[in-house]
Amino acid sequence: VTELDDLTTRMREFTQARDWVRFHDLKSLTLALTGEVGEVAELVQWLPVGVVPDGELWQRLGDELADVLLYLVRLADVAGVDLGQAALAKLARNEERFPAGTYRSVAPERR
Amino acid sequence: VTELDDLTTRMREFTQARDWVRFHDLKSLTLALTGEVGEVAELVQWLPVGVVPDGELWQRLGDELADVLLYLVRLADVAGVDLGQAALAKLARNEERFPAGTYRSVAPERR
Amino acid sequence: VTELDDLTTRMREFTQARDWVRFHDLKSLTLALTGEVGEVAELVQWLPVGVVPDGELWQRLGDELADVLLYLVRLADVAGVDLGQAALAKLARNEERFPAGTYRSVAPERR
Amino acid sequence: VTELDDLTTRMREFTQARDWVRFHDLKSLTLALTGEVGEVAELVQWLPVGVVPDGELWQRLGDELADVLLYLVRLADVAGVDLGQAALAKLARNEERFPAGTYRSVAPERR
Repeated sequence: VTELDDLTTRMREFTQARDWVRFHDLKSLTLALTGEVGEVAELVQWLPVGVVPDGELWQRLGDELADVLLYLVRLADVAGVDLGQAALAKLARNEERFPAGTYRSVAPERR
Repeated sequence: VTELDDLTTRMREFTQARDWVRFHDLKSLTLALTGEVGEVAELVQWLPVGVVPDGELWQRLGDELADVLLYLVRLADVAGVDLGQAALAKLARNEERFPAGTYRSVAPERR
Repeated sequence: VTELDDLTTRMREFTQARDWVRFHDLKSLTLALTGEVGEVAELVQWLPVGVVPDGELWQRLGDELADVLLYLVRLADVAGVDLGQAALAKLARNEERFPAGTYRSVAPERR
Repeated sequence: VTELDDLTTRMREFTQARDWVRFHDLKSLTLALTGEVGEVAELVQWLPVGVVPDGELWQRLGDELADVLLYLVRLADVAGVDLGQAALAKLARNEERFPAGTYRSVAPERR
């Protein structure tokens, strides 16, 4: 099991050891996050809908999703946000906001 | 502490309970991830560099980062990727690829 | 017909008249562009593939695509890039790089 | 001068000549747009604020901005949106919505 707190600490140490803290402001990290999400998009853009790639493409997809998580964890740390707590709180709110009965099979236009 | 596996399971159950699995293909979820990263970008775009917002803006930033994580966890689940393991593996590779001595204070053009 | 040069000039004047030039550095404008692309993504994310929305959703899609163009034009202006010339040059290169015969019906993995 | 209508027509012909129309649904094109914006983000993410790159990096920035425009034009065409008209209309609305006097030097939190 991987704990977000552990990833957060390791990314912080990785950054400090290279003196990269100076580059890691909110705007630069959000751009880095955008770049990684863009790489995920490039991997899936021409796939037929419903297809999950395999082989080398699947490997690259895992790598890019990992990059998204690493920058996200770093961004939350710089922002002073407890990412795990924020996610649990948001999930709890979503469970209230979209009751399973009412929203069954209905895609909300914007969640 | 928040475990990624736990978030993954809860998001999967949330999706199944609403019969939303049908909407959660890789392409749609990557678009949803893009949308949430876009919301983070909108919150920080006009901030002076180095500023971390407080008050309501900080709260909203935490909410949007949470949304990014929730869709990311869901996307990895649909892709069959163990997100925590992928992140740890990528971090280990980055530690080798960017030795602290060589890269001290030097922003790699593209990581 | 709408000329890119005309949009560029009008966006520049719009920005100067509000003294917003100070906010329009490359990084902030790229974040703004990310935000607008995120809004487009939110509008199409749950659509069935191949569907073009109508009514109010179509109107909003047009608005968001317009926002993407306006920030793109502004970003190119700040970067000192002639966007129209760059696009024509890139299109000419793509026509050489992807000969119609060879690439017929084949989605390049990454263009 | 480059006209958007001309770019639109040329991209449509480029796509038809390769029988790529089948790949160009709204969702796939929005993902492609996301990928290109991600490439722009990667080029500017570690730049000091206010710096415009030169040399090879500037050249690549122009190329990526061109890619964003080409996909944007294609996306608007598939959506049946007149991109130039939509941009002019949006700009006119913004001029009304943000009077130069009131908004002088004030970054709107979200435009």
